[in-house]
Amino acid sequence: MLITVQKYGGTSVGSPEKIQHVADRVIHAYHKTKRVVVVVSAMGSATDVLIGLAKQLSLVPDPREYDALISTGENVSAALLSMALIQKGFSAISLTGAQAGILTESTHMRAKILTVDPSRIHDELSKDRIVVVTGFQGVNTLGEVTTIGRGGSDTSAVVLAAALNAKNCEIFTDVEGIYTTDPREVSLARKIPEISYDEMLELASLGAGVLHPRAVECGKQHGVHIHVRSTFKPDQGSWVKETNMEVSKPVTGITASEEQVILSILNLSHTPGVAGQVFQALADAGINVDMIVQSVENGSQNHISFSVHEEDVLKAKMVSEKMAALLGSNQVVLDEDVSKISIVGVGMISRPGIAAKMFSTLGNLGINIKRITTSEIKISCAISRKDTKKALETLHHVFDLDRV
Amino acid sequence: MLITVQKYGGTSVGSPEKIQHVADRVIHAYHKTKRVVVVVSAMGSATDVLIGLAKQLSLVPDPREYDALISTGENVSAALLSMALIQKGFSAISLTGAQAGILTESTHMRAKILTVDPSRIHDELSKDRIVVVTGFQGVNTLGEVTTIGRGGSDTSAVVLAAALNAKNCEIFTDVEGIYTTDPREVSLARKIPEISYDEMLELASLGAGVLHPRAVECGKQHGVHIHVRSTFKPDQGSWVKETNMEVSKPVTGITASEEQVILSILNLSHTPGVAGQVFQALADAGINVDMIVQSVENGSQNHISFSVHEEDVLKAKMVSEKMAALLGSNQVVLDEDVSKISIVGVGMISRPGIAAKMFSTLGNLGINIKRITTSEIKISCAISRKDTKKALETLHHVFDLDRV
Repeated sequence: MLITVQKYGGTSVGSPEKIQHVADRVIHAYHKTKRVVVVVSAMGSATDVLIGLAKQLSLVPDPREYDALISTGENVSAALLSMALIQKGFSAISLTGAQAGILTESTHMRAKILTVDPSRIHDELSKDRIVVVTGFQGVNTLGEVTTIGRGGSDTSAVVLAAALNAKNCEIFTDVEGIYTTDPREVSLARKIPEISYDEMLELASLGAGVLHPRAVECGKQHGVHIHVRSTFKPDQGSWVKETNMEVSKPVTGITASEEQVILSILNLSHTPGVAGQVFQALADAGINVDMIVQSVENGSQNHISFSVHEEDVLKAKMVSEKMAALLGSNQVVLDEDVSKISIVGVGMISRPGIAAKMFSTLGNLGINIKRITTSEIKISCAISRKDTKKALETLHHVFDLDRV
Repeated sequence: MLITVQKYGGTSVGSPEKIQHVADRVIHAYHKTKRVVVVVSAMGSATDVLIGLAKQLSLVPDPREYDALISTGENVSAALLSMALIQKGFSAISLTGAQAGILTESTHMRAKILTVDPSRIHDELSKDRIVVVTGFQGVNTLGEVTTIGRGGSDTSAVVLAAALNAKNCEIFTDVEGIYTTDPREVSLARKIPEISYDEMLELASLGAGVLHPRAVECGKQHGVHIHVRSTFKPDQGSWVKETNMEVSKPVTGITASEEQVILSILNLSHTPGVAGQVFQALADAGINVDMIVQSVENGSQNHISFSVHEEDVLKAKMVSEKMAALLGSNQVVLDEDVSKISIVGVGMISRPGIAAKMFSTLGNLGINIKRITTSEIKISCAISRKDTKKALETLHHVFDLDRV
């Protein structure tokens, strides 16, 4: 029996009216397959309100209590959607993460989902009930409510789809799908009908923001096809699934992230293990580091530079200065005018010259490239923020993304 | 080991600042006994906000989903209070009704508490933790969250006190205790230092509003002394406990309820079973009936009249008219100008003339008595609403309540 799994985000269930609308979409799916499991996020800003209350009582809220607190946001929206479905004449039931059998690590605030025991869900489905599951939460072996990190409802939905052997997972959101680039920046941005897990992983991590990277990873692992689509329009959105590696275009999407800062530690002593010490210290401080470059000039001048998210910059600067003093460096330099432009596509694997084409395009525009990093299916360049829009638009055109 | 059980109502935990204050009071108790269990209601109007959301999605919300929804209010306040205690350097943990071992009937929205398994609470207390329990909720044998009816947090607290063999249960609220009458109406109203369970039961049912009748009943049953006191002042409040039956004053307190309406069904056929049929029909419609009077005039004219809460009046009128048609009555009459004044006191049992004194006092004031009902320790008179204040003040004086 085919099971439909749908997930609705916070903006989609942000008010009673919107919940009514979501109920209608769920009923539409129920008429098709009779087996519908719906995962919901907390209403609109509910989670932020709860976090705000917690912050007023504790600078660093106790993790267990934090989870007990913010998981209530999803309990509210799940119960409300279930009520709306019942009011419309359908049989429905809301299940918490615990009731839905979602077992997580015992750690709090960002527990990973370990297993799903779908027996209760199957039981409710067999009674012809629409099952509404609270996203973002689970339970650990101690019986404590855990949450799985922000954006975790996407992951909850894909994990449930996998556990229920649903082929697809529909992620309903306030945008219409995944775009070749940000449509607010580039008017010619197009919706991508299909994209591979790997490409989506790069795009999700790069801040496209439509889909949580953990959900993509989980979909890839379990072969769940993810359909990102609009809650408010009936059209097809974008499918994330295995796609043919022999694709027609080398580049699938382009992203820009303007929240980067580059730190450079200059003139470090040129002894083995220096880089290891620097990045260990940064990791110990919980700082995510990106775009690492180590350059050795004249056989002894050793510079290390890397980019961090701007919210980590103060902490990163402190750690860097401490390490600089320890390792013989005389200077830590910050560049806060950084925008990271990335082109992503599985098609670039088999095609040489894509990187060169990106660099020369930027060069022809008179844009200075500050750093370059690459992966199998991604090339990123750090440039000045003032050049972001121009770079995006031109690369979008040069790599043929504004044409079908 | 002595265990302290405290309960804080919705106004007491209505904001982060107030929760800080409650945390300080809890810590004060912790310093004394080291074993503290705190029961909390939802923050201020949180429950009403949730009910408002539900009503927007369903006229008659599904009971299971309703409980899943509104129980989150207590989860929020319990987690926040626990965070505040931890922030202040104490070890604390919040427990849901289910985690605290509160097993209820399987019915929803007004489930009765069946048993409490206090092992988890004992376990946490033995780790020197302050235990914060969500009021108003439990779990049924199916593992579903249930709620125990409005005002139920009082009951949760007393039930826990009984299960934990705590001698006392402190009910912290926004008033300073139980008064001889409503201090907003009668300026000479005095705080009652001690009151018996039975008297409190009459007063609680009569709408004194400080303490839920179920909590009093439960305290009586298990011998838990209930201390009703102010969250915001350190003074002693009022103790509800077994008191000496030989008390000095016949009357302990006086209440007025202005939300009454009297319905009369006139000229019913005078056959056996008529009254039974009328009140069965009202009970089937879920209407609470009070002050029943049946009068038979001239051996055949049979009138039945009773009072209901004004929120039930439309339903009661409909049922009464249906029954009137069925049972040969030609008229249903409403009196909406009804105020019920009640004097309560165990002292009246052994003293004749208390009723007469009440009636003549009202008579001397020129107040017409519309109905009279009595119990062992209570005499109630229905009068016109315009006379409420005058009746309260005079009876308060006549029965010596304004003197210690």
